[in-house]
Amino acid sequence: MNTVAAVADFRTYPLISALNGVQRLADRVLAEWADGRVSPFHHAWLRDNCPCPQCVYSVTREQVFEIVDASSSLEPAAARIDSDGRLLIDWQDGHLSRFDPGWLRAHAYDDESRAERLAAKPRPFLWRSDLQLPVFDYAALMNDNDALLHWLLAVRDIGLTQVRGVPTEPGSLKAVAQRISFIRESNFGVLFNVQSKADADSNAYTAFNLPLHTDLPTRELQPGLQFLHCLVNDAEGGESIFVDGFAIAEALRREDPPSFQALCDIPVEFRNKDRHSDYRRLAPIIALDALGHVAEIRMANFLRGAFDTSVEQMPLLYRAYRRFIAMTREPRFRVMRRLNPGELWCFDNRRTLHARNAFDPATGARHFQGCYIDRDELLSRILVLQR
Amino acid sequence: MNTVAAVADFRTYPLISALNGVQRLADRVLAEWADGRVSPFHHAWLRDNCPCPQCVYSVTREQVFEIVDASSSLEPAAARIDSDGRLLIDWQDGHLSRFDPGWLRAHAYDDESRAERLAAKPRPFLWRSDLQLPVFDYAALMNDNDALLHWLLAVRDIGLTQVRGVPTEPGSLKAVAQRISFIRESNFGVLFNVQSKADADSNAYTAFNLPLHTDLPTRELQPGLQFLHCLVNDAEGGESIFVDGFAIAEALRREDPPSFQALCDIPVEFRNKDRHSDYRRLAPIIALDALGHVAEIRMANFLRGAFDTSVEQMPLLYRAYRRFIAMTREPRFRVMRRLNPGELWCFDNRRTLHARNAFDPATGARHFQGCYIDRDELLSRILVLQR
Repeated sequence: MNTVAAVADFRTYPLISALNGVQRLADRVLAEWADGRVSPFHHAWLRDNCPCPQCVYSVTREQVFEIVDASSSLEPAAARIDSDGRLLIDWQDGHLSRFDPGWLRAHAYDDESRAERLAAKPRPFLWRSDLQLPVFDYAALMNDNDALLHWLLAVRDIGLTQVRGVPTEPGSLKAVAQRISFIRESNFGVLFNVQSKADADSNAYTAFNLPLHTDLPTRELQPGLQFLHCLVNDAEGGESIFVDGFAIAEALRREDPPSFQALCDIPVEFRNKDRHSDYRRLAPIIALDALGHVAEIRMANFLRGAFDTSVEQMPLLYRAYRRFIAMTREPRFRVMRRLNPGELWCFDNRRTLHARNAFDPATGARHFQGCYIDRDELLSRILVLQR
Repeated sequence: MNTVAAVADFRTYPLISALNGVQRLADRVLAEWADGRVSPFHHAWLRDNCPCPQCVYSVTREQVFEIVDASSSLEPAAARIDSDGRLLIDWQDGHLSRFDPGWLRAHAYDDESRAERLAAKPRPFLWRSDLQLPVFDYAALMNDNDALLHWLLAVRDIGLTQVRGVPTEPGSLKAVAQRISFIRESNFGVLFNVQSKADADSNAYTAFNLPLHTDLPTRELQPGLQFLHCLVNDAEGGESIFVDGFAIAEALRREDPPSFQALCDIPVEFRNKDRHSDYRRLAPIIALDALGHVAEIRMANFLRGAFDTSVEQMPLLYRAYRRFIAMTREPRFRVMRRLNPGELWCFDNRRTLHARNAFDPATGARHFQGCYIDRDELLSRILVLQR
């Protein structure tokens, strides 16, 4: 059995520490590592994760065994370390499981191992107006997977990037986006054209200023990444403005805790409506993850429905909303740049709010194209590039 | 000003009850309705929701006014009911707002109005093995918007439907799906072919039995609707099996509360991996909404990663997981049918778990096509059809 098949995965798991010993207890096995760590593994967990070809189909590397088909009182008849350093379990029902020590250590669930994995998770780098804008080169990221990975890590962790040297033919954005994955379609299309239109079905398609917002807050899952590619920009005005919504939310948490809490707790409805669609989504403006970190911002004043909360809470919600919007207007948070033809923005649409100054269509043409990709596709692409 | 422009919406708001009187208090206006209800509206709320053409762009019907641009101490100079029965507010800064009484009543946030709206929300109809399968006719739903709406309401509320009379040319599914919206693409394509393949990148593309599961639990947002369209079904076996995941979760809540709670609280990782992608998502198997109702099931044993919870919680998680899987196998919950050529399943992929019996490719060909649409698109389509 080779190591890859033995872990039922496309990753490799380096040997952090060898298995030194193994003890059998009533409901678990204790694995003792050369570096002194002791990791308990319950019998059910070990049987469930058996990587043998009977339990995992070798072509798809997906499990065919289901733990409910094993007795809940199943126990090892024997547990030992084999000559290759693997944990070997002889089950009472005759099944045999072998565990690669690199894989086992990577999935150990003793407190220390879990804390290590938690600490290794990437955390966002928060920024303000003095951000050194991360700029990437089109030719490099189209041709070189290392350059691509470098860009995608910046998108993931900083949430605002610019790419230069992009062709200005309409549709060129598609090839850039597809270096990551397929594009997420919406009712505005696969690629959308950001131009001032007489029959606009969104304020984005006017020459108005657009206040700081996330796109499609009206959907259950806001698009993860947004691309905006400049083809023509001869009009006066129309500068792009960005703020780090996570940085603002964290500042709000410090400076006005009740307002922060109100935006986490009270759901707000966002609405997109035209003759052909009617999207509505009720959700708080600030979402936290299980650890209390700010995980998402949902905001577009022009797509917001009437607040619908109790009479008692309404004044607090208005205070919090005013405060948050006022903060998005503060210079300490804002990055403003004019995008030139052949440049594109790629940013985290669930974190980085974007705005546009009003422009004057009488002074010249302005044509941007945009599209979306979801965070799942970004993270998958990063994991594949990191293999 | 006509009524449509005055409510900045594509809906109409019938007059439930006329405005009888209005009282000004320090921070709010009290609207008194003909049926005796009294609805408070805070000054900020009224100014924020002014539907006049200065505040709302009439082409897009999106707000251009931002409440942060009004003083937080802004008050009405006068509030009265005009000769058309509308609430009229003269603001101290000279702005004038007029509110349609139908719109105002539909957005009133006194306790009684909020409770009424909550009670009017659609709730899922839970089912077991004795479900009268909702069956719809292809020609009717393709040509008649009422038939289409009838089908979509069944998809929303029951979560399992069959359509008959569908052409069996490959790709025919696309036209059915597009009666609702664009299709949600995934790494398996826009339409995916469910056939036994030698180089399968998913157990779905083998002839194995597939246990009851949701598709793509490895994504942050599981696809809302799944379509499975039968083109050819000459092989022995391969029957479709469905259970209502919400009904099972509610039964688990009654029959084994600690197991139910564990599946709500303890996140589990699901993984899709092949040579080109590496999707991972950590989330609980049962998700509740803000009111404690079961809102989503996430489950696919063959895509599950190793459980990663504390040593203390691990035995409870295995007990709960075994119990849930065992319940999906109980006859009281299961609907089993063989799908014939020209028939398709359309079901709520976040609620209705589906399974397939093993089939024998040596006995004949079997070819299904599938695709996904998200719940946002379903709900938007229903709202437009209901206008």
